[in-house]
Amino acid sequence: MGLIDTLLGRHLASHEADHQCVGPLAGIPMLGLDALASAAYGPEAALTLLIPLGALGLGYVWPISLLIIILLLIVHFSYRQTIAAYPGGGGSYTVARENLGVMPGLLAAAALLVDYVLVVAVGISAGVGALVSAVPGLQPRTLALCLAILALIAVVNLRGVRESGLAFVIPTYLFAASLFVVLGIGVARTLLSGGRPEPIVPPPGLPAATATASLWLLLRAFASGCTAMTGVEAVSNGVTVFREPCTLIARRTLSAIVAILALLLAGIGYLAQVYRVGATEPGQAGYQSVISQLVGAVVGRGVFYYVTIGSVLAVLALSANTGFADFPRLCRLLALDDFLPHAFANRGRRLVFSHGIYVLTALSAILLIAFGGVTDRLIPLFAVGAFLAFTMSQAGMVMHWRNFAERGAVSSQLINGLGAAATGITLAVVLIAKFTEGAWVTVLLIGALIWLFLSVARHYAHVAEETRANHPLDLEDLQPPVVVVPVKGWDTITHKALRCALKISFDVIAVHVAANEGEAEELERIWHEWVEVPARAAGLGAPRLVSIPSPYRKLLTPLLNYIDRLKQEYPDRQIVVIIPELVEARWHQFLLHNQRAAGLKAALLFRGGPRVVVANVPWYLS
Amino acid sequence: MGLIDTLLGRHLASHEADHQCVGPLAGIPMLGLDALASAAYGPEAALTLLIPLGALGLGYVWPISLLIIILLLIVHFSYRQTIAAYPGGGGSYTVARENLGVMPGLLAAAALLVDYVLVVAVGISAGVGALVSAVPGLQPRTLALCLAILALIAVVNLRGVRESGLAFVIPTYLFAASLFVVLGIGVARTLLSGGRPEPIVPPPGLPAATATASLWLLLRAFASGCTAMTGVEAVSNGVTVFREPCTLIARRTLSAIVAILALLLAGIGYLAQVYRVGATEPGQAGYQSVISQLVGAVVGRGVFYYVTIGSVLAVLALSANTGFADFPRLCRLLALDDFLPHAFANRGRRLVFSHGIYVLTALSAILLIAFGGVTDRLIPLFAVGAFLAFTMSQAGMVMHWRNFAERGAVSSQLINGLGAAATGITLAVVLIAKFTEGAWVTVLLIGALIWLFLSVARHYAHVAEETRANHPLDLEDLQPPVVVVPVKGWDTITHKALRCALKISFDVIAVHVAANEGEAEELERIWHEWVEVPARAAGLGAPRLVSIPSPYRKLLTPLLNYIDRLKQEYPDRQIVVIIPELVEARWHQFLLHNQRAAGLKAALLFRGGPRVVVANVPWYLS
Repeated sequence: MGLIDTLLGRHLASHEADHQCVGPLAGIPMLGLDALASAAYGPEAALTLLIPLGALGLGYVWPISLLIIILLLIVHFSYRQTIAAYPGGGGSYTVARENLGVMPGLLAAAALLVDYVLVVAVGISAGVGALVSAVPGLQPRTLALCLAILALIAVVNLRGVRESGLAFVIPTYLFAASLFVVLGIGVARTLLSGGRPEPIVPPPGLPAATATASLWLLLRAFASGCTAMTGVEAVSNGVTVFREPCTLIARRTLSAIVAILALLLAGIGYLAQVYRVGATEPGQAGYQSVISQLVGAVVGRGVFYYVTIGSVLAVLALSANTGFADFPRLCRLLALDDFLPHAFANRGRRLVFSHGIYVLTALSAILLIAFGGVTDRLIPLFAVGAFLAFTMSQAGMVMHWRNFAERGAVSSQLINGLGAAATGITLAVVLIAKFTEGAWVTVLLIGALIWLFLSVARHYAHVAEETRANHPLDLEDLQPPVVVVPVKGWDTITHKALRCALKISFDVIAVHVAANEGEAEELERIWHEWVEVPARAAGLGAPRLVSIPSPYRKLLTPLLNYIDRLKQEYPDRQIVVIIPELVEARWHQFLLHNQRAAGLKAALLFRGGPRVVVANVPWYLS
Repeated sequence: MGLIDTLLGRHLASHEADHQCVGPLAGIPMLGLDALASAAYGPEAALTLLIPLGALGLGYVWPISLLIIILLLIVHFSYRQTIAAYPGGGGSYTVARENLGVMPGLLAAAALLVDYVLVVAVGISAGVGALVSAVPGLQPRTLALCLAILALIAVVNLRGVRESGLAFVIPTYLFAASLFVVLGIGVARTLLSGGRPEPIVPPPGLPAATATASLWLLLRAFASGCTAMTGVEAVSNGVTVFREPCTLIARRTLSAIVAILALLLAGIGYLAQVYRVGATEPGQAGYQSVISQLVGAVVGRGVFYYVTIGSVLAVLALSANTGFADFPRLCRLLALDDFLPHAFANRGRRLVFSHGIYVLTALSAILLIAFGGVTDRLIPLFAVGAFLAFTMSQAGMVMHWRNFAERGAVSSQLINGLGAAATGITLAVVLIAKFTEGAWVTVLLIGALIWLFLSVARHYAHVAEETRANHPLDLEDLQPPVVVVPVKGWDTITHKALRCALKISFDVIAVHVAANEGEAEELERIWHEWVEVPARAAGLGAPRLVSIPSPYRKLLTPLLNYIDRLKQEYPDRQIVVIIPELVEARWHQFLLHNQRAAGLKAALLFRGGPRVVVANVPWYLS
């Protein structure tokens, strides 16, 4: 065991070394990118609903932004507590399952899975929205661009990416910095101009009002704006990546992320009102994102504009990437708990959870195609999952603190309770306001996922029940098996397979499916000379040779029929079929061999019955 | 052997019963559809090249048609002889290989494979051309329609189709009958009107002449028109499908097909001139196929027009289908001769040669996409393959007759010699006339295919060399193997795997990769009580249990490392790893299991080394 312990030990050590040295500066891009990227589509989502109010709508931007910022701060304090309580990482699924029970845990898990798919779809579509704003000629290619970026991200993730790395650090800080510069210049020019700054590139005029403000409309705008808060939970999942004292550093990182996000939201809300920037009709010619209008208005369409829009595109595409990091990981947890097929828990060839990546890519592609790659149509589906997960997690924390009699537990419980109440109310608002617009899809998906989890768990439980053994090892009747060796001719592969068969049992039958009689006679002659004579000389029973004619050169059917017959002949013996397989030096050579072996293996596994064992003997080609 | 003989016998009998009862009436659609469909694009291909001549071009249609018809008749007599000489089916590959040698055989095979891909691509694109002529609104969707039809045909073929059946009979006869009606009415109206009939729907006016007739232009038009002859070789391939006397019936069928085709070509050529129907610019708005113009001019755009165009579309799509019948069959012959990977010789799940279908679909899709689904752009690639195959086949027949001293052999040789000369000259004309327009692609493809054939053959020869055995069976040192059984816990699956292991050898090691210590201790306790105690009581060596801790629930790496260590420990023993596999009642349950088993099997096969044998023990779930 020493060697394996050493290997495993070294392995773990190197694994941990990679992941436990992150400070707040690297932590903000790594875990905050998704949350910060929301600033690029959250305010726009709210403004889009205010379009019917025309210029009047701008008056409501600031109050809605303020409400969202307050909600963000409540959630922030609530999650600081989760970090303290779960230094090992407290995702919504873990917290809800441990404190509230299995069904709430599955509810949180389903909500999160749907949320991650939407993170991918919305991140990509919003990024392409930014690109299309900068280069309007690309507008008709929106969906194709979305799918191309999705394919790129999927391939990169299948090859395996590290979460950190410069690819995340540079765009995140460039995004935050350039937006802060824009907001700073904008605020300064507003103050200098006495509240009426002249836009450098004037935004498209606001449309005439076609509706008056109603509570219903404002609630819906707020509900859409809440998508700006998605991604805030990431730090609480990833506490383990920080260096010691990790709880402290994680909390500091969360606060920094929330502070940046709040400032961005406040700045965008304020300047949109001052510069009279409204949303444009999404998915239509002439569409331009709010961020693009705002940057153009404040600093014009120079190099800086393109740098900023470029960083927005990069951050949004990378925020889609965080979906690719989180979705497979949650699928793995669910698979380990028997709620998803165990395949989701297996690392693929390049040490990524490939199955999760396939499923996520397929689902995101379906969403993007179904909604034409237009962010605005995806938004109503989005906030439900995130806020459901928030609420389950905070509610779980409330129950968590009940088990502690320590000082501070009551106030912790109160803070989490406030968080649960605030996110719960928001969830209700979002659900009601967005139900007919698309939130019903999310509700349906969450329901379907929970049904899937329970079906899978029931199946695994059934298999475990069916295979339960409450008896000792039965040592009666351990006769050696009858070994069948399909042979093509007398070569080293047949030789090796025969030796392997003889090591297992002396009841060996070589089966030769012959295309013509000449072939059969030739092998029978060799067999007599090179197998039977030496075996008799060594005093051993010689392996029998059985020839089956197959004029149309079929292999599978004659062989399967023969094995069926053997099963009748030896009703209580195990039958081992030895299948030699060529192992190639180069991958493309694999195409040249083994297709028959693969077909035979599959046929024997599925139709051979419980007594047939398939043994693969490899032959390595040089 | 009795049972298998009976089974095989019955099997063959039923197989032959399906295929050996076809008369000329069913044979014409089955083997002639592809040839007849050529009438829909051959004349158009020639007319397209005459566009620059304007109205003057029409004067050359009739002589070109006549030349093609004469060529067709020569080829016809030549193939009648092939049928007589090869009653078992004489494809160009077979005939050329047997009579001319391996390289000419491969040349014919490569030409045919390229030809079949083009049959598919041209059939579909010409069919869609007919559809687009009837419904001009679909013109921008040409390529999408082509790919959709290709996908449909591919799926139908993967499921398996019979070559005969009403699906072929009805469209073929409807196609021939409705075109004959159109041609008959057209000729009658021409005669009644004294040679100047009034078109019911006038064809689009002929463009002004932009060039004068040159020999070069006329040669190119002739070369394009020769595509009308593709598919004529099909009957000689399929002699076995006819009922006795099959040679006679096959020859009669070939004559009928050639007669219908010649009449169609003559009629179309004549009426195009009389009704002043020229080709329109392909791939452009306003495109209308020649057949569509002609039918419209003769009978107007009533119900009959749509019936005729519908049958043209159906026949063209089905002619693509004949590519799907022939390509995989030729690939199989090549694979049996070691010139293509053996996988092409395996029947898939539904008794079709799936690999050939995959490759054909992919290649046709690439061609369609590369050429935008426009028939006219594909035509220059087309005739080369067909005429190369014709020439090789006829030349092979010339050599064939040299071995016969019978009466008549000389005249047979002369007829085939005339065929070979005619098709050889045409091939040269087509190659020269079309080289820069696309025939170079075909030449390149044929060259690449021959290179592939030879590389594959070389590889198989190398493997045969490397695995050659010139020594008798070595019976020394037949120690039983060391058997490794990975176990997850104590259940009936483990129980069965252990019993299977003990039947093979008494050196059994159960390996348990444990996520935590509790799990490991629990299994050790069970092991002692239920394995070690009964084994000792029975006087047998008990299977050892080895626990490997794997806190991150990895399975593959710890297991592979352990097996590496075993290989060092037992340097001269075979190591058998027993992998239990669940066999499911329903296919979707397969997704829930065995992914780890599959990964382990692949890893052991490719990285286990020559001494590791993988044995699969199935466990059937009820």
